[in-house]
Amino acid sequence: MHKIFHPFPFENKISISESESKHLCRVMRLTEGSQVLLLDGDGRKGLAEITLANPRKTELKIIEIDKIERRANFNLTIAIAPTKNIDRFEWFLEKSSELGIDRIVPILSSRSERKIIKPERLNKILISGVKQSGQYFLPRLEALTSFEDFVANNNPGFIAHCETGMKTLPFTEAIKNQTDINILIGPEGDFTSKEVSFAKASNYEEVTFGKSILRTETAGVYCSAITNALL
Amino acid sequence: MHKIFHPFPFENKISISESESKHLCRVMRLTEGSQVLLLDGDGRKGLAEITLANPRKTELKIIEIDKIERRANFNLTIAIAPTKNIDRFEWFLEKSSELGIDRIVPILSSRSERKIIKPERLNKILISGVKQSGQYFLPRLEALTSFEDFVANNNPGFIAHCETGMKTLPFTEAIKNQTDINILIGPEGDFTSKEVSFAKASNYEEVTFGKSILRTETAGVYCSAITNALL
Repeated sequence: MHKIFHPFPFENKISISESESKHLCRVMRLTEGSQVLLLDGDGRKGLAEITLANPRKTELKIIEIDKIERRANFNLTIAIAPTKNIDRFEWFLEKSSELGIDRIVPILSSRSERKIIKPERLNKILISGVKQSGQYFLPRLEALTSFEDFVANNNPGFIAHCETGMKTLPFTEAIKNQTDINILIGPEGDFTSKEVSFAKASNYEEVTFGKSILRTETAGVYCSAITNALL
Repeated sequence: MHKIFHPFPFENKISISESESKHLCRVMRLTEGSQVLLLDGDGRKGLAEITLANPRKTELKIIEIDKIERRANFNLTIAIAPTKNIDRFEWFLEKSSELGIDRIVPILSSRSERKIIKPERLNKILISGVKQSGQYFLPRLEALTSFEDFVANNNPGFIAHCETGMKTLPFTEAIKNQTDINILIGPEGDFTSKEVSFAKASNYEEVTFGKSILRTETAGVYCSAITNALL
């Protein structure tokens, strides 16, 4: 069934946006009487029927509202430096939203080459990943935050960088028995040793993703895959 | 150090291709006396010195050859239907070669929309992923093979599809204590139930990747990430 993101509460009669209406009528070719699913991104699911199929302003009538419970086993925050090539960051968002992630904090670190992101476009990618993979919870994309501010204002978690030795804790071990996972992933040029020291002084623990040196976006997707698989 | 893929044996004096020579001289700006690393993709590593820095035909002299041992813990084959949008398949190749994979078999199944691939371009992506992530073994990309031929000519492994129930074996459990992992991943429209039955009749076991419905390329990257993390 076609899914539409719509903020809660779902009123009894709902008008949807022009772009969504156009998609519904012109691309999906849905007509009056067809059913669609409204999602609020926070677990609410509203079964609705099209009462007016108008490509400018389609109207829906709510039939039934359900609430899906959020998984209780873990909460995953990835604080990650957006990549110079935005496609790579967008891939990370798409794949992580398919796999399951709760919160993404784009961070600005000393070696960040990308200093601007477009939240609206990035949120659309998250919505599409969530729809695609049959989930009900939309990951929260926060504003671009400095590395130091993030570390100062969040409970300590893990930091991944390329200078780790053989004895560094593997991420797979680090997350065992944890419920709130919070991991810092650096830009293409890696975190500086000053940043690593700053995080460690704030009780962040260094972790490794194995023998390969992963690109920023691959590291992000790896964390989403492993957390969802192991917790 | 700059890495160049070159077939073994490494002769004492080596001339490298024009495109690689151009990259070395024009982009990397390396000159006579600079050192580079030759890789054969099968664990051999040759330290070499540039004896002639010519953007048309650079020449190298081998200084030392090492052999890196292949990891012994597992062998991962992913037999996967190339996606309609080739970018998605290329992304799978890039990420899996970064994470670690041994053999990729592009398969043609009933619902495959893409029936042609360009092995030369795809191999370049694998080479770049292996270089990028600091590995020494190049994954083997096989020719496009029909689903039935693949199943008939390979030892049974696992098949992932979207119609699995709650009781289906998770991939994370399925690979425990295995050394030869062989997993079938279908196209956008999924495997047909006839294909699933055919695989099961050939002793393939159904597996699930968790609660999310993953896109073809995400499923592929998930298998590479999990196998490398757990085995």
